[in-house]
Amino acid sequence: MGGDFAPDAVIEGAVDALSRLPSGDRLVLIGDRKSILEKLASMQVEPSLFDIVPTTEVIEMADHPARAFAQKKDSSLAVGFGMLKSGLIDGFASAGNTGAMLVGASYTVNVIPGVFRPALVALIPNIDGRSSVMLDVGINPDSKPDVLLQYALLGSIYARYVLGIENPSVGLLNIGEEESKGSAAVKAAYELLRESAEVRFTGNLEGHTLFSPEMTDVIVCDGFVGNVVLKMAERFYGIAKSRGIKDPFFDRLNFEVVGGTPVVGINANVVVGHGISNRMAIMNMIHQTVEVVHADLARKIKEAVSS
Amino acid sequence: MGGDFAPDAVIEGAVDALSRLPSGDRLVLIGDRKSILEKLASMQVEPSLFDIVPTTEVIEMADHPARAFAQKKDSSLAVGFGMLKSGLIDGFASAGNTGAMLVGASYTVNVIPGVFRPALVALIPNIDGRSSVMLDVGINPDSKPDVLLQYALLGSIYARYVLGIENPSVGLLNIGEEESKGSAAVKAAYELLRESAEVRFTGNLEGHTLFSPEMTDVIVCDGFVGNVVLKMAERFYGIAKSRGIKDPFFDRLNFEVVGGTPVVGINANVVVGHGISNRMAIMNMIHQTVEVVHADLARKIKEAVSS
Repeated sequence: MGGDFAPDAVIEGAVDALSRLPSGDRLVLIGDRKSILEKLASMQVEPSLFDIVPTTEVIEMADHPARAFAQKKDSSLAVGFGMLKSGLIDGFASAGNTGAMLVGASYTVNVIPGVFRPALVALIPNIDGRSSVMLDVGINPDSKPDVLLQYALLGSIYARYVLGIENPSVGLLNIGEEESKGSAAVKAAYELLRESAEVRFTGNLEGHTLFSPEMTDVIVCDGFVGNVVLKMAERFYGIAKSRGIKDPFFDRLNFEVVGGTPVVGINANVVVGHGISNRMAIMNMIHQTVEVVHADLARKIKEAVSS
Repeated sequence: MGGDFAPDAVIEGAVDALSRLPSGDRLVLIGDRKSILEKLASMQVEPSLFDIVPTTEVIEMADHPARAFAQKKDSSLAVGFGMLKSGLIDGFASAGNTGAMLVGASYTVNVIPGVFRPALVALIPNIDGRSSVMLDVGINPDSKPDVLLQYALLGSIYARYVLGIENPSVGLLNIGEEESKGSAAVKAAYELLRESAEVRFTGNLEGHTLFSPEMTDVIVCDGFVGNVVLKMAERFYGIAKSRGIKDPFFDRLNFEVVGGTPVVGINANVVVGHGISNRMAIMNMIHQTVEVVHADLARKIKEAVSS
């Protein structure tokens, strides 16, 4: 159980997620057993609907990620990643300490051999109703050209298997349409992408193309600009809400309806939730994790990278 | 005269700008004399309200900036920068070829000694009604730490003298609040900013802080992320407009009401207009140039950098 509103919001979100859970799937709640049982009782929910794995420690949001992960071996994060690694669970999601989630992702389940750097994936809504895959949105603020090229492949696999887009288009987020534009890393990445036979690269895409019908299915960027774009989009949702604007497009910018940001490039399916996740955000984070698990994303990426 | 809708939109915008022009100021129209006179006649505007400088060549939007600037010596861009350099005009604005504008800015009027790299400045609206200064938004996609530090100074001078903010706060656009976050350049810039006695640095600022009351008066970023932020904001204006959302905050994201992006760090006052500037955008670009000229921005920056 992680996040600013744990355990209550986490348990409530998990209960809400049950109704849309594919038959045969089980939700495993990892956390303080007593709190979980008390909360379920107060909601009049039968505990046997879940598997419950008790833990005794908590990684706080302010804890140093790597140190906390190493020292608090009986935290839900450490136990969850251990279960993921040993195959006891097929996917793991938490709204807990993001840094500790990434430590677990990289050092417990490990990066897939051949993957340079894992990435965080965000779904970017299009006003035409579709969604695109943007990566990286926060792990690698300095992404080298070969890393950006590989993001194109990882994002294409995500688009194909999780979103069901047969032959996804890939755009490089840049400051102009021309190939001569951009930072040194982005210019070199353009060259690599243009020569790539593995992805369908369609060229550069600018800030004003995001959210538009011209947006590609996959948007490649470094983790710095991707993170700023994601948080700025979140801000626009907040502005629209605070100004009483009711509009389905702006609603899709609400992280609570998205759920979380999957980590790609590691040997298991992991979704990182927002620290401020409420009940709805947790429910959607779980749905998203189920989708990623059923798409068998980690294995699909492993096959693509090793082929 | 430059821009996709020149000369008509440029002349119309200039006529509209006359009513708010400070007394004693003159607008100089540089372009094809016959077109200018015909257009003014059709609008029943007395040509003597303007100074008219005739030119015979045109730098097209698709022209190679440096080559066109060097070869088309009788274009409005080349003539305008020449007049600016020799002091015949106090400020210069154009919605023409942006690359050629920057060539003129750097190689005709020249970079101020002591300035590492000039920058493009954007005004970012705050939902509380204020505006902040963001730089760079397009010239330097790879900005080194000392360049980012100097942007803080250039932006502070802009905020002080053009926006009238006495002691402007400066934030560094980043992907987290902690000083350990960000790209290598941004982390090093944080260290430099923290030690600086010239600017009031208040720490990092994230994508979701933009447009909010917590936004600093000056936002420092490299030209890559700044350009993406600016164009994405423009996109949100377009989305709001296309969805019939009427809201004064979203209206302030419309580049047509802003006018253009001033260039700071050069020996004269220059404002770069958007290529697709219409009549209203041109009028506001002129107003903005007048403000920058009356603030004596270029000289203020020169004094600050050499002190």
